Parts: sequence; C-alpha cells; structure tokens
Amino acid sequence: MIKVGIIGSTGYAGGELVRILTGHKNAEIKWYGSRSHLDKKYADVYRNMFQIVDAACMDDDIETLAEQVDVIFTATPQGLCSSLVNEEILSKVKIIDLSADFRLKDVSVYEKWYKITHKSPQFLPEAVYGLCEINREKIKNARLVANPGCYTTCSILSAYPLVKEGLIDTDTLIIDAKSGTSGAGRGAKIDNLFCEVNENMKAYAVGNHRHTPEIEEQLGYAAGEEIVLNFTPHLVPMNRGILVTEYAKLKKEVTYEEVKKVYDKYYGEEKFVRVLEKNVYPETKWVEGSNYTDISFQIDERTNRIIVMGALDNLVKGAAGQAVQNMNLMFGLDEKEGLELIPMFP
Amino acid sequence: MIKVGIIGSTGYAGGELVRILTGHKNAEIKWYGSRSHLDKKYADVYRNMFQIVDAACMDDDIETLAEQVDVIFTATPQGLCSSLVNEEILSKVKIIDLSADFRLKDVSVYEKWYKITHKSPQFLPEAVYGLCEINREKIKNARLVANPGCYTTCSILSAYPLVKEGLIDTDTLIIDAKSGTSGAGRGAKIDNLFCEVNENMKAYAVGNHRHTPEIEEQLGYAAGEEIVLNFTPHLVPMNRGILVTEYAKLKKEVTYEEVKKVYDKYYGEEKFVRVLEKNVYPETKWVEGSNYTDISFQIDERTNRIIVMGALDNLVKGAAGQAVQNMNLMFGLDEKEGLELIPMFP
Amino acid sequence: MIKVGIIGSTGYAGGELVRILTGHKNAEIKWYGSRSHLDKKYADVYRNMFQIVDAACMDDDIETLAEQVDVIFTATPQGLCSSLVNEEILSKVKIIDLSADFRLKDVSVYEKWYKITHKSPQFLPEAVYGLCEINREKIKNARLVANPGCYTTCSILSAYPLVKEGLIDTDTLIIDAKSGTSGAGRGAKIDNLFCEVNENMKAYAVGNHRHTPEIEEQLGYAAGEEIVLNFTPHLVPMNRGILVTEYAKLKKEVTYEEVKKVYDKYYGEEKFVRVLEKNVYPETKWVEGSNYTDISFQIDERTNRIIVMGALDNLVKGAAGQAVQNMNLMFGLDEKEGLELIPMFP
Amino acid sequence: MIKVGIIGSTGYAGGELVRILTGHKNAEIKWYGSRSHLDKKYADVYRNMFQIVDAACMDDDIETLAEQVDVIFTATPQGLCSSLVNEEILSKVKIIDLSADFRLKDVSVYEKWYKITHKSPQFLPEAVYGLCEINREKIKNARLVANPGCYTTCSILSAYPLVKEGLIDTDTLIIDAKSGTSGAGRGAKIDNLFCEVNENMKAYAVGNHRHTPEIEEQLGYAAGEEIVLNFTPHLVPMNRGILVTEYAKLKKEVTYEEVKKVYDKYYGEEKFVRVLEKNVYPETKWVEGSNYTDISFQIDERTNRIIVMGALDNLVKGAAGQAVQNMNLMFGLDEKEGLELIPMFP
Repeated sequence: MIKVGIIGSTGYAGGELVRILTGHKNAEIKWYGSRSHLDKKYADVYRNMFQIVDAACMDDDIETLAEQVDVIFTATPQGLCSSLVNEEILSKVKIIDLSADFRLKDVSVYEKWYKITHKSPQFLPEAVYGLCEINREKIKNARLVANPGCYTTCSILSAYPLVKEGLIDTDTLIIDAKSGTSGAGRGAKIDNLFCEVNENMKAYAVGNHRHTPEIEEQLGYAAGEEIVLNFTPHLVPMNRGILVTEYAKLKKEVTYEEVKKVYDKYYGEEKFVRVLEKNVYPETKWVEGSNYTDISFQIDERTNRIIVMGALDNLVKGAAGQAVQNMNLMFGLDEKEGLELIPMFP
Repeated sequence: MIKVGIIGSTGYAGGELVRILTGHKNAEIKWYGSRSHLDKKYADVYRNMFQIVDAACMDDDIETLAEQVDVIFTATPQGLCSSLVNEEILSKVKIIDLSADFRLKDVSVYEKWYKITHKSPQFLPEAVYGLCEINREKIKNARLVANPGCYTTCSILSAYPLVKEGLIDTDTLIIDAKSGTSGAGRGAKIDNLFCEVNENMKAYAVGNHRHTPEIEEQLGYAAGEEIVLNFTPHLVPMNRGILVTEYAKLKKEVTYEEVKKVYDKYYGEEKFVRVLEKNVYPETKWVEGSNYTDISFQIDERTNRIIVMGALDNLVKGAAGQAVQNMNLMFGLDEKEGLELIPMFP
Repeated sequence: MIKVGIIGSTGYAGGELVRILTGHKNAEIKWYGSRSHLDKKYADVYRNMFQIVDAACMDDDIETLAEQVDVIFTATPQGLCSSLVNEEILSKVKIIDLSADFRLKDVSVYEKWYKITHKSPQFLPEAVYGLCEINREKIKNARLVANPGCYTTCSILSAYPLVKEGLIDTDTLIIDAKSGTSGAGRGAKIDNLFCEVNENMKAYAVGNHRHTPEIEEQLGYAAGEEIVLNFTPHLVPMNRGILVTEYAKLKKEVTYEEVKKVYDKYYGEEKFVRVLEKNVYPETKWVEGSNYTDISFQIDERTNRIIVMGALDNLVKGAAGQAVQNMNLMFGLDEKEGLELIPMFP
Repeated sequence: MIKVGIIGSTGYAGGELVRILTGHKNAEIKWYGSRSHLDKKYADVYRNMFQIVDAACMDDDIETLAEQVDVIFTATPQGLCSSLVNEEILSKVKIIDLSADFRLKDVSVYEKWYKITHKSPQFLPEAVYGLCEINREKIKNARLVANPGCYTTCSILSAYPLVKEGLIDTDTLIIDAKSGTSGAGRGAKIDNLFCEVNENMKAYAVGNHRHTPEIEEQLGYAAGEEIVLNFTPHLVPMNRGILVTEYAKLKKEVTYEEVKKVYDKYYGEEKFVRVLEKNVYPETKWVEGSNYTDISFQIDERTNRIIVMGALDNLVKGAAGQAVQNMNLMFGLDEKEGLELIPMFP
C-alpha cells in the first residue's frame, strides 16, 4: 500500500485527488494537508466525503510528512513546492507537483511568466514533465514529477502527432482554448461568482497566459525547434471541462486517412487518449469525471488548414487524474489503477 | 458472472445502468436493448462509452433475452414491462422494472393515475417494492422487483422514520420536491430544450404527479393507516439531483437529539443513507453521481413543525443505482458492489 | 426631472436601480454612491453601462446628498440606512430604503432576527411598507419607504387575497421558496462561486430566515390576527428569479372559479401582478427582467389544500423595480414610468 | 405608425422581434404569423407576453399581408422568403429577411452551402446586405434587406476596420466563434436538450458552417479581393450571446494606439458598436438583451498577430435588433428607436 500525503488537499484539484485516491486499490491517503482548514474535518470542507473520509485537515509540515509517506502531491499555488523540496526530502519521498514550479526547464522563462523567483532551480534538470503518454519511461524513474497544466495537457496531446511528424507549419499554430470554471480554483473572487460566470463567456489573459511557454517548450521538443504560438483561454459557464480548437497550415496535402493513421500511431494503444471517428468531434461532457482526452480533427481543403479539437476534464486528466497516472508509473503499478472512471453523462 | 440484459438501454436511466454495471465486478451486460437505436453502436448513442462498450443496440425480444441472461432491467415507458412478463419469463429470469408498472399494489390506483390498462395485474401481489433500505429481506427472494421512482425514493426515505415511529401527524405532511432535468428523459420536447429550462424554474403536475400514490402507499404501510398528502414537483436548471423539503406537524414536543436518534436507528447502519450532522442540510451536488441519499432535518419550535430535507441523484439512487442495489440483493452479492461511487464535486 | 441619489449603487440591486432609472423619463441619477469602488468609473464596475453612464462612484455623504437630490435609494446592508436618517434629512429628501431597517414595525422583532441594534426606531411608525399593490395610498405621501424584501414581495402578493378574504386557515400556511443566486449579492464568498452553485440545489436558513417576520407581519395585517408560518428558502442555479410555492388548508370548499374571482378582485386592475389562466403555472423565466409578479393556484380536493405559486424577478419587482414603482407613487408620476420592461425570453 | 407583419413570429428570433417592436414608439405589429401555432394566442406560445400581446397567431399569407402592413419581417427557415417575394409584393411592402436567402450575391454559392435551389435569384442584385454600420446609406433606400447572420455580424464588425485598412494579411484570418444555444432555434431536437447542452461544450460544422461564405463575401468587399478563411462555431451552455476570437498576422508593425485609432475611425460615432478600453475584453453578459456589439483587441508582439474579440447578443444585434435597426433606417426614423435597450446584468 502506497502511503500518500497531499499538500493542498482542499482546493478543487486536491479534492479531486482525494476522490480518485479513495478508490485506488494500492494507495492510501495518510495526510490531508490544508493550511486554510487546519484541524477541520476534511468531510466538513467537502461534504461529498461525509462518511467516506474521517480524517481532519493537517498542517503541511513537509519534513514530518516525508517520514510518513511514500509520495507527496503538492496541489498548491506557484512557488510553494519549489520552496519545500530539497535533497533530503527527495531522498525520502517522491514528489508529484501539480503547480508550475518544475514544468519549465528554463528558470528565466518561469520567472518572466510567473513573476516570482524560483526557490530551487537546481532541481529543474532532474524534474520530469509528467505527460504520461509522451514521457512514460522517464516518469517511471523520476523522484520529482512536474504534473502538466490542464490547458497544456489538452493542447499538447491534440497537436503532438502533427508536430512530431512534421505535418504542420508550427509558425501558423493557433490554440483557442475554452475552460470550465473549476480551473479558476476555489478562491473567493467576485469574477468567479455564479452570477458573473453564468450566462457569460469571455477571453482572458490574451497573449500572456502562463500555460503558453509550457506548451511551446513541450511542442518544441517534439518539433526539434523553437515554437512560438498563440494561446487564448476562455472562461465557459460550466464546472468542468477543457476544449481546445487548434489551427495550423498543413505543410503538404494529406488526406484524412493519412492523418488518422498518424494519430493512431501515437495513441492507438493508449488507454486514456481516444482518437474519435471521422466527423465526430469532442465534447467536454463525454469525458466528464474521467481521465480521457478525446481528440478529433478536420482538414479544410479550402484553406489547407487542419483543425484539431481536444477535450478533457481539467480536474482529472488536466490535474488529479494525470497525477495519479504519474504515481502509478513511478511505483510500477498498472497505469490505469484507480483511473478507470467512466465518464458521467448527462 | 451475472449476465444482464437491459431493455431501454438508451434512455438516461438506461445509460446510467450501463455506466454502473460496466464497473460492476460480478455482472456483465449481454444485451443492450434499444428499439429507437437498433443496430447502431451503443457508443454512438452515448459517446462517453467510446472504447468502453463495443456492443451494438439490439431489439428487445424478451423471449430470446430470457434464455441468455440472468436478470433483465426494464428502463422503459409505463406499460411496457407489464406487457412483457409472464410466468414463463419469470421462471427463467429475474426482472427489475424501473417503470411504475409494478409499484402500486392496487391496480385501480395505477390505472387512474397512469391512465393505461395494466397488462398483467396478476403479478402485482408477487412484485416486491425495491426500496432496499426498507424491503431488504423481501427483495432477496424476489423474482420481480418494482424499482421505486426517483422522487419517491427521496420522499419516502426522508419521512420514513418519522412516520414509522408515529412522530408526525401524517395529515399535515407536505412534500415540496425539486428535480434536475434528466428526470424528464431524453425525448425531444420543446419544454426540455436548454433555452427553456436554463435560467428558469417552475412547478408542474401540481396536485396530480404520478409519484404521489406511490409515496402515499409506501408511507401508509409504515404508518399502518392510509395517508393522503401533497406532493409538488419542480423543475430546476441542473442535470441531476432531487431535493425534497418535507413539512409536518410534530405530534408532541421532541428535541433535535431525540429525532436524530430515531433517524440513526433506521439509517445508522445503512451505507447509502447518510443522516447529516446538526445544521448541515443536504445539497444535491454532494451526492452527484453516487448512490447516497443525504437526509437532514430541523425542528421549528415556532410552528411545532419538523422540516426534513433529502437529496439524491435521480439517475443513481433514484433509478439505476438502486436497481443495481436490488440486483445485488437478489443475487446474494455484497449490496454495495459496483455502487461505491464517490460523489463528484464540483 | 427628479434628481436621484443611490447609496450602494454597485451591489446587484444598486446596479439594477441604475439600469431601470437610466431608462426613466422623469428621473436622473445624480449620485452613484459606492464606498467599495470610490472614484472608479461606474462603467468600470458594471461594464454593461459602458458609454451609457459616464459618472464615477462617489462617497455616500448623506448630508451633501440631501442637498442635491430629491430622493435617495439606499441599497445597503442592514443597519446603514437607519444610522443615516434623521429629521433634517427627511425634511429635505425622500428616502426609499431597500434594506430591512424600516420594514418591521416592532423594533424588538427587528433586533431579534437581524441581531443588530436599530439606530433610529423613532422613524418606524412613520415608515411606510412599500408594497405598492397593497399600500399604494400611504406610499404616495410617505417621506420614508421601506422597500420590501424579494422573497417577501413574492410570498405576500401570492397569499394576500386568500388571507384577506379569510379563505385559508393561516395556521397551516407553509411557504417553500426558491431563489436565483443574485439574491445573495455580489460579495466574494466561496458559497456563491459558480462551481459551488452550478448543478446544485439546497435549502438554507431553515426556520430562521429574516424575511419570515416580515411576511408574518404583513399577512397578519391582512388577516387581522397574528400569523406564524414556515418559510424555507432554497438556492437555485440561476441568476435571477424567485418562485414561491405556498400550501394552506382551505377553510371551506371553494371552486377554482370562486378563488379566481378573489384574485381578480385584488389584482385584476393591477399592471404588475398577472393572475395566470387555469392550469398555467408561473415560471421565473417569463418575468425575467420585468416588474411583473405572476401568480397561479391549484386546489387539491384530495387534501383540501390550495397550492399557490408566485414568480418574480428578485432584482426588479423584488428590489429595484418596486423601489422605482414606489418613487413614481411618491412623486405623483405614472406608476408604470420606467417599468414597462418586457420580460426577456429566452 | 409603421404597420408591421412578422412571418415566423414564434421562433426565438421572431419572439425577440415581438419583444423589441412592442417597445417601439413608431411601429405596431399587425400580424403575428406562425404556421406551427395557428390560431393559438401569441401569449400562450410566449407567456412572457401575457397581458402585453393579445393577438392570436395568424397564417402567413403574404398577399393579404402586403395589403395590410408597411414592412414584413421574415424570420423563417432558409428558402421560404425567396419563395414568397415577387415584384408585386415588393412594390407594396418592404421586406426584411432574417434568413440567408438574400445574403449571398452569388446564387451558386448559396445553393452550394445551403443545398437548396434559390426561388428568386432575380432579386439578389437588388437586395441590400443589412449590416447597418457598413451599408447604412444603401439600406435607407432598400425594398429588400437581407438581415445578416448572428455569427456573421459579430465576425464582420470585429474584423472590418483591420481588413478595410489593409492592416492584416487576410490569408491568415481565423475566426473561432462561440454561441449560446438560442442560436439553434426552438425546434425539438435531442442535441439541444438541457441535459445535452448543460455542462458541455463542443465545436460543430467545422469547416462547413453556412455563415462562412457570408463572412468571406462581405470582408472580401472591404478588402477589395477574395478572402477564404476558417470559421469554427462552438456551442456554449448559455441562452444568449456570441463571442468571436479572431486571429490574423499584422502586415507591418503597429502599436495598440494606432489600431485603436482605426477602430475609432469606423466605430467612434456608432451608437451600437462599443470599442472597449485597452485590456478590457468583451463578455457576452455585458451586452445581453441589448443591440450592442462590444469589440476589443490585443496585439501579440511575440507572434506578430492581432487577436480581436467581439461580443453581441445573437437574438438582438445578431437578429431581431439589427432587423429593427434596418427598419428604422428604411423608414427614415431615428436609427436607435426601440433599441435603447440597456444590457441586463447579471
């Protein structure tokens, strides 16, 4: 039984970790860290867990924690995880960080986009970017995994085969992303009130969303060259779900079937990426509550562009689900353990 | 492995049966019945099941079905199940009917409220009302189970201990119920369009909703006398969830703690009924996707009334989940098998 | 042109006052009071007003204000208006208070339910309860109007004819109310975040909501005797709208037509109360954005109860619209001026 | 008083025409055409109009109609208006067609995208494309106005100044559009049920939405050359509102201020187009219920692209509001009459 500690267990991503790990056969949560709800019963913070979780919220003292658990998930604001890790901690316990602290290899890019000083850049080379379908082998041996962002996971998985195979002109790549509101977290902000979000839609962080360099870096590895692209996030009146619509010029004429083969090559054996059938497009509802990413594409011969669409649940494959998938890999378990969550409809 | 057939597998309740049974260790769906989607792949009707269910929709020929499966769920409009069952069928296969056909013992009440002629009233005496927490022992030996309605389950479970213990004047019992829209089914009706339901709320079927006699009959058994009450359903702009608010005069002065003890007596050992703590009221979101019914109450000393609130997911404990709970009982399985679904939040 | 000042113009009710008064032919807003957004442009707080309102938010100094305007609307938390009014102010300017400060005649009831000390109980006898359809004549001559609560307006108007005519046993009156989320205001609270409210429903303040004594007092005047009743509010995932469902025993047998006549007697000439046709029930969407209250009822012969339903837009007839209706009456204008807002559908 | 007839008055766009025209000082609806609700009271189809509209739905006999009214709005499926107009009709009455029949000058393009034969192509040269801000003068003298599509209005107005001034490389123009569900109409389709749309988002008609050629044609006029672009619509769980996000490469380096001047040149005097301030992006909620289009843009120096965002209410500026704006122009009225609808928030 893997002993698990969660730092930041009362945010939405933390709550989802608890939901998923509670159903995991080989893991047991030992530590429900939450500074904001210290000593309160966890089930008083998330009443769905009444009579399921009996524990109380604990302080997040990482030294103590490292003695008691095998893996720590940090579902905390940017800058916290990097201020906690050190060699001693990493020698005792594996860390899966759901924040952005270890996602970008270049510390100057991190500091420019996040506007904070990185506390432990020495671990950046070691940290493994935890996009399981792409970095599976590296993840297996990692001590420190940087769990990808929600927008990022969806954006990268959708474009990856095209970029890797050199099918598109990466200069023309545009990602228009739409997200449910749980991505904004459980903080009490006027902008996230029901009456402000409901019956409303808007773009935000246009040209400067922090997931941009993460997408650029990872797709850049696939392309073997630097990529600069447009990424525009939008807020949608729904709880869960990310949908990305990606546009790029095709380098040469290809048929639907040829591109489909490319996607199948990369994802045909993947449990958690579903390449949809022709003319079927992803809908966020079809993946809700599950660890799936659904992907589809359309070639527009009029403009010679390919339009790729991807959908996932931002709290599952976009956060907690992928984190557990990483844990499974790191501990040599069946990658699917605890994650065979069937999407809920309606 | 229990072999399962579903007649009406493409309605919302049928879809939820498929979701739940797909995760059930001891059951296997052999027959995805659907007249309206005959021969279409099931995953083309419910795309959440893509790469999970490979089967196609089949015609619902009950004779063939009875040879091939151990249990049939009928998730069909009123009148269908009663037209299918006969002694031969029941000798071969167990039936769990999610329609109202076998819920009311008095055929004249059925025909009055449902305005159709009952096709097989001879099985009414035998049919067991499948409210597991109340009729557990009878269900275990039943061939034919009448799975309760969604409103009904919530209404009865919330009031049952009060009625059974004679704490309230049943003449004063009023049930004000609120339901998400999936209760209205997947039929294409203008009234259920997004734009008609969203940002809207209304009462409907005031004074004549068909779940009324079902609640009255079952609570009447508990009371040992006939009960006539008001039940008013309302449509709420959400997919899932039923919330009932019940009002009744207390027969004598009782404290919160005394009533709490009564509820604990009936539900303290129940897995799927959670009696909440003082001053915590049920919210539909806290039970979403799960088989729980959450119950709480408040005593109003000013009016000497008790206000009881109950919440459940209409597609799970209000339909498919309870149906599987019944199946587990009928086949001697762990009652919880396949149903340890953790509520999803948010 | 009536010069208007609004104290608390940046809450949801304040914003609705601005929307309505901007379209009012005989009134002009001179003062957009808002402490929380001082000196910010009003249209930066409510961007719907961009290029419509050019003014900035001002401090709410009531002495200065009283010199410059003819009427002040206070859309502020409980306790503020009563701390501002005095004889000098009232001699200069009319006040329409959207808070509860002057709604209850008995100061001890106010202090018990609101748990604050009333700062100017000497004005309670003079204050007129601004439910236009019932107190029209008194309002015309008032200096200080207590604008009714949103739940209250809907609850009282729905039951008033029955109570006034002695048709129901007021001891049996139960009000089950459902409200959109704008009633909770624009404060940044976790409970009102999109993800907490969406796909969710709950009761709250069971047995102790502050609108209870207000309803009891006003219906008590109609009945000519004290009334104690149950009022249970519920939160619904929609922005606007209140729906009340009221239950009471009829004192004697009456027909639908007889009761309809009673409703028509009170509301037949009223512009803003629409008594619906038989078997048509109110829906909040049908009154959205308008000053209407829609009312309908059903007699249940099985239980000898009448079920009355009422719907209004909590920000219009339940707050700002009724406040403007009061202003029109107080200044001798056409009661409908600025209020002929056609409900928006969908 | 302008006498108005509406053919197709019971769709959502028809309903919005009724809402707007009911508040119009110089127009009076004489004919509520609706085949599907023939002889039913209009207020029984749209209960928001109870006690506001007393008329019944009438058959849409255009010959009779042409004798009785000054202007006919056709809010009907594609192909109907073109089957009704002829020289005699047009000599008697002005026609504002909300369908696509007269929007595309090239009949072969119409027939290719709409897959129906055009019944009266002879009127295509005469028909004026009713985008008021661009074709104002032509509209004033038109007999037959083709009211633009909802997506189209938003897409064109947002890009127009950039295209007209040659600031962008039109080959790189991509329009990612998001729409509320009322755009799908009031037809009873499973895809538009509450439970299918709520908590869901998807792209549809990727690469082949019918509004594409309309956008291309109109922007082509502005550019003085043929334009082929990508337009991708998405369905969003809200009733009203369209948001477009447009991407294009800038031909040369320009500053925010320079581009702002260009937008102000075209829209600075326009009542119904609001160019927002720097770093403020459009939200559909801020224009809900009004005739405004809100536009904003951001220059991304990293990619040398401009991202333009536009928002409008699809039923108002995207349909009925613009139709009334056209009527005002055609009859020499104040263009704003009946359209000073203040956006409703929340």
